[in-house]
Amino acid sequence: MNHLKGRVTIPTDIDVIPQTLEILDLWGADAIRDCDGTDFPAELRSADAKIYSTYYTTRKDNAWALANPDEIQQMYLMTPFYTADSDSLSIHLMKGLYPDMLTPNCRDDIRRWWEVMDRTSGDPVPAEKWSYEEATGDVTIQTVPFHEYTVSFLAYIMWDPVHMYNAVTNDWKDVEHQITFDVRQPKTHDFTMKRLRRFIEDHPYVNVLRFTTFFHQFTLVFDELAREKYVDWYGYSASVSPYILEQFEKEAGYKFRPEYIIDQGYYNNQYRIPSKEYQDFQAFQRREVAKIAKEMVDITHECGREAMMFLGDHWIGTEPFMEEFASIGLDSVVGSVGNGSTLRLISDIKGVRYTEGRLLPYFFPDTFYEGGDPVKEAKYNWVTARRAILRKPVDRIGYGGYLKLALQFPDFVDYVKSVCEEFRTLYENIKGCVPYCVKKVAVLNCWGKMRAWGAHMVHHALYQKQNYSYAGIIEALSGAPFDVSFISFQDICEDPGILNDIDVLINVGDADTAHTGGEWWCNPKVVSAIREFVYNGGGIIGVGEPTAHQANGHFFQLSGILGVEEERGFTLGYDKYNWENHSHFITEDAGETIDFGEGKKNIYALEGTTILVQNEKEVQLAVNEYGKGRSVYISGLPYSFENSRLLYRSILWSTHDEENLHSWFSSNYNAEVHAYIESGKYCVVNNTYEPLDTVIYRGDSSSFELHLDANEIKWYEI
Amino acid sequence: MNHLKGRVTIPTDIDVIPQTLEILDLWGADAIRDCDGTDFPAELRSADAKIYSTYYTTRKDNAWALANPDEIQQMYLMTPFYTADSDSLSIHLMKGLYPDMLTPNCRDDIRRWWEVMDRTSGDPVPAEKWSYEEATGDVTIQTVPFHEYTVSFLAYIMWDPVHMYNAVTNDWKDVEHQITFDVRQPKTHDFTMKRLRRFIEDHPYVNVLRFTTFFHQFTLVFDELAREKYVDWYGYSASVSPYILEQFEKEAGYKFRPEYIIDQGYYNNQYRIPSKEYQDFQAFQRREVAKIAKEMVDITHECGREAMMFLGDHWIGTEPFMEEFASIGLDSVVGSVGNGSTLRLISDIKGVRYTEGRLLPYFFPDTFYEGGDPVKEAKYNWVTARRAILRKPVDRIGYGGYLKLALQFPDFVDYVKSVCEEFRTLYENIKGCVPYCVKKVAVLNCWGKMRAWGAHMVHHALYQKQNYSYAGIIEALSGAPFDVSFISFQDICEDPGILNDIDVLINVGDADTAHTGGEWWCNPKVVSAIREFVYNGGGIIGVGEPTAHQANGHFFQLSGILGVEEERGFTLGYDKYNWENHSHFITEDAGETIDFGEGKKNIYALEGTTILVQNEKEVQLAVNEYGKGRSVYISGLPYSFENSRLLYRSILWSTHDEENLHSWFSSNYNAEVHAYIESGKYCVVNNTYEPLDTVIYRGDSSSFELHLDANEIKWYEI
Repeated sequence: MNHLKGRVTIPTDIDVIPQTLEILDLWGADAIRDCDGTDFPAELRSADAKIYSTYYTTRKDNAWALANPDEIQQMYLMTPFYTADSDSLSIHLMKGLYPDMLTPNCRDDIRRWWEVMDRTSGDPVPAEKWSYEEATGDVTIQTVPFHEYTVSFLAYIMWDPVHMYNAVTNDWKDVEHQITFDVRQPKTHDFTMKRLRRFIEDHPYVNVLRFTTFFHQFTLVFDELAREKYVDWYGYSASVSPYILEQFEKEAGYKFRPEYIIDQGYYNNQYRIPSKEYQDFQAFQRREVAKIAKEMVDITHECGREAMMFLGDHWIGTEPFMEEFASIGLDSVVGSVGNGSTLRLISDIKGVRYTEGRLLPYFFPDTFYEGGDPVKEAKYNWVTARRAILRKPVDRIGYGGYLKLALQFPDFVDYVKSVCEEFRTLYENIKGCVPYCVKKVAVLNCWGKMRAWGAHMVHHALYQKQNYSYAGIIEALSGAPFDVSFISFQDICEDPGILNDIDVLINVGDADTAHTGGEWWCNPKVVSAIREFVYNGGGIIGVGEPTAHQANGHFFQLSGILGVEEERGFTLGYDKYNWENHSHFITEDAGETIDFGEGKKNIYALEGTTILVQNEKEVQLAVNEYGKGRSVYISGLPYSFENSRLLYRSILWSTHDEENLHSWFSSNYNAEVHAYIESGKYCVVNNTYEPLDTVIYRGDSSSFELHLDANEIKWYEI
Repeated sequence: MNHLKGRVTIPTDIDVIPQTLEILDLWGADAIRDCDGTDFPAELRSADAKIYSTYYTTRKDNAWALANPDEIQQMYLMTPFYTADSDSLSIHLMKGLYPDMLTPNCRDDIRRWWEVMDRTSGDPVPAEKWSYEEATGDVTIQTVPFHEYTVSFLAYIMWDPVHMYNAVTNDWKDVEHQITFDVRQPKTHDFTMKRLRRFIEDHPYVNVLRFTTFFHQFTLVFDELAREKYVDWYGYSASVSPYILEQFEKEAGYKFRPEYIIDQGYYNNQYRIPSKEYQDFQAFQRREVAKIAKEMVDITHECGREAMMFLGDHWIGTEPFMEEFASIGLDSVVGSVGNGSTLRLISDIKGVRYTEGRLLPYFFPDTFYEGGDPVKEAKYNWVTARRAILRKPVDRIGYGGYLKLALQFPDFVDYVKSVCEEFRTLYENIKGCVPYCVKKVAVLNCWGKMRAWGAHMVHHALYQKQNYSYAGIIEALSGAPFDVSFISFQDICEDPGILNDIDVLINVGDADTAHTGGEWWCNPKVVSAIREFVYNGGGIIGVGEPTAHQANGHFFQLSGILGVEEERGFTLGYDKYNWENHSHFITEDAGETIDFGEGKKNIYALEGTTILVQNEKEVQLAVNEYGKGRSVYISGLPYSFENSRLLYRSILWSTHDEENLHSWFSSNYNAEVHAYIESGKYCVVNNTYEPLDTVIYRGDSSSFELHLDANEIKWYEI
């Protein structure tokens, strides 16, 4: 056990060579990495550390890209909506797009691969009714007056979006735009395998190739002013080309349409209930990406190096929770850690030897500027991630960006030293153990395990007003003593028996989104299976607009179970007499006011439902019984320690297990207890930066009083 | 001109004979009426006043009803939802219903007229898979486990719902339950015409028969505890019987299904987008009701009496804004006035010689109790109704209830005296004139003229949290200087040319309701016509979730015109840069904070839209230009004088008519100016109970300063 050294990766650059060695020693790091926009200094090749090198599979070779313009990567784009005011309409394709980043592809047959849509009728416009003039960049359409039109088109990616993002964010001047080439296509495929071997030969000192990533960039587009225009970390719209789509057509057995990707301009984002065609396409991409990624990993191994994948940038098609992933044969995955959910997104990945979490903040000027407070950001990041690490640790942590920037903040350097030491201690204490789980909880949405931990997540774990009240549930679960799984409606449809192994189902999000399921709730097989599950004693927790889709006399399709319904006008004529608040097991630790975040308007309780919190005749929290089962409705639950406790109690109550509350439990919800039965240890962790007092209950309900310093962890033998 | 007497109706009863005469004199009333639960005293038959008698077409003759049980009225009811936990399920029909009010009809063929619905599959259960046992009152169904079921059934109305309501509200003891018989059926039809003649013969002193009303009660149902359970003033579910439905089948040419009325338990309430079948049924009922009502009116006239219809109780099928109404030949309509909208609902009716508004409060114990404040209610009622009277007056006003109760409040008696005088003055000044209208405004929804002024209205003009922010628009219009029409999507579909005669279209309400139109916005003909209307210079005002239905890349189908869209998750990936508030013509009279009522969450502006009010990145008020037209988006606008002004300015701005603001205009929005060009008069009215100062602008924009006393009206010559 070494608390002083190991499990930490640091960035370097040619302007911080002695400082890199100092930091290596100070933080006990055992790996050094380069970053996009930095160079690895020759002087550090012999340092006492593994050396990671970023490897850009699809860029940093413009000569190749320019020599093979037909194999430059492409993406599908949709123009804005335009209304025809006569029988003809001209649409300039590149309106609203950064001109240097994209070039429309009219090398391939545009009548096959582009699509002009009449968005008023919903139909494609026949190819003979529109034409494209390359000189002007305009599509001209024969229109029906006052119908709305869009053009879906393919464009070559002439500036890699992440390279552009880094250049814009860091204000790089006169940088050559790195063009993205497509490893899936034959010439570039051959070239890539040779290029990889040459890179490895040219970098004998590199131990670990950090692939950034494989072949397809998540969707990232900029507007005319080089501002971010559209981003979807899960987006597949930049993973296309006629070459790939023709293969897809063969496998799928039906004709491809641009609309499968364009999706009315919504690009199949995480809120959209996925269509069969889109899921077919994703599955096809996973298989094809895994095949070629494996070739690269095999070459890496053949050359005696490790292969690490960065879960970001060109990660599309790798989907680490799907079957194909393990077949790639990677040694490790590294990803950015924004909070507990993103930590689990990395640490729960199977099929690699180790995982690494890149903690925040990046050493970038947006945080490390004069007057900035990087320690605050780092503290928030660490304490949030630590909850999840205690459930399922990553094997390593690391940092990225310009080390020089971090060095200008000595208190930051000191704080990171403490983080590294604390991480090593934690890791030694819990590695290899499955922590004690109180219940088996399954989150039910349209994506299931494919989006485990991530279905409510956006790039950079950004706060979104529409989302934080729901993402809070997932964040609470990421560090809570539950065995958490993620299942889809399709999973239940294929095998309702999977519900047998679950204690509590959670459905969380807004109506008619992929998060809650929309029309899936009209699938009799699915809905019957879930009713039966609850009737026989299962728990169900609905948050926001759970099970919601307007049909068959309900908006909440399981309103009969949840005991609540949303007033959409249709039931205003029914008098409602159930408005009284009740005290309850679930709210026993809650303060006067519970933070439901955005909450939900217009929720009312049915007869017989027990309301826990109702404000101005809008129900925020209610419970109900159905057969032997129990349900909890919550209007929203932003992440906080207090709300995490409310969710904990909800899970216990919904499984009739109130009497086991005092097992591995802290009376003060700012502290949590994690037990590792296999290794005979348990710890108590103070999640706040203030000291606290609490009563700790062991697994046998015996208890003791405890004082914890700010952020302290204490370890005990069972 | 007589300011001292006339145009006022008062109630009486046998316990207030001399007081009736005093009040008749004090208030200058010229008509006396009885009410449900009161008797007309013989001593007053010779009073110097017209005598109204309520006439109950469908009740107050239990002997007939009991002798003809097959012709007792019926209604469709749906049981609650029940989930099968095995392959059989028993549902007790009367669960949740007041037992004395309803008796299931198993006299007719229940397999034809009842329907058991599998609400999980959405399909009816074949009749051979269920049975009804009259002894237990249970329907037993062969079920699919964990599917949900409801039973739609017919029940006889054994206690007239309004009679029950009056009995419960006024705590009548030991009252015989009045049974409702069905005038549409042959025996009762014959009987009714004879009964009417007899009634007239027996009441030679009665001048006016006030029909309460004709044949079908709006939907009103009570629960086991005699509490109101479900009410829909527009509901047709109590206008059915196999006799009627068989006629309907013949006319419609297709088979009737209970689901056409039941509508998943929503009973086609005003928020539901009406189905073709429901509209067919309504049209059938209008024709049939008008035919038989005309018979009764003809008899009334033949006997030398007037026929007045009460717009309430059994008004279903009379729909006063539809073509059939005038054919009934009524002399007058009377209805309850809750505010300006309900006033216009009466005063705008054509096809009668005069209209009468029954002002609030009712002389019922719920207002006239010790410590109650009936003056407050009366003042609110009057000042609110007066705005609308100044646009289109009713010809008479009146009161209802127990006069004895009112007499106990001398200040109320005095206040009503002043109301009566003020009404007579107003009426003399404006009768017969069309007031000056600044613009032609059309409210667009699924109901059009059929629900003119009333589409957002519920029984008793109750406040509803889901509604008041939208009803406020209609209320503002009811007293504003606009020529207001109500059009439906069907109207535009049939003749897009109707838009040519409109300055501003208003679409107001929540998404996917009959108020905003839902799927109608996917009708290319409708949406193209409206786009063309705006493009060519028309104005459009959207309130709440206007034009909203999720399809074709939009939630707000006219987002391109309105310049705003609702974030439902699907466009979270798009960066939004337009958040700045702007000062504007529309908000020039608004205070620091505008009251948007419930407002709307998650509204964002598109590029190019001008935001007037955005709070926490949620747009509440924004304007946009489209072709030569203009749009205004408002998230909600509860009724107030300030908001009424904001709507006024919105209408002017949206029609490019800002420069005509200072025409018949009060700088202080608590006062309004109404001009009657034809009669060469205009008035200024203080809508508040405080004195105020303002600057008044005449039609030529010349102005003068003015002080008005509380509630004062001043009249001027033009």
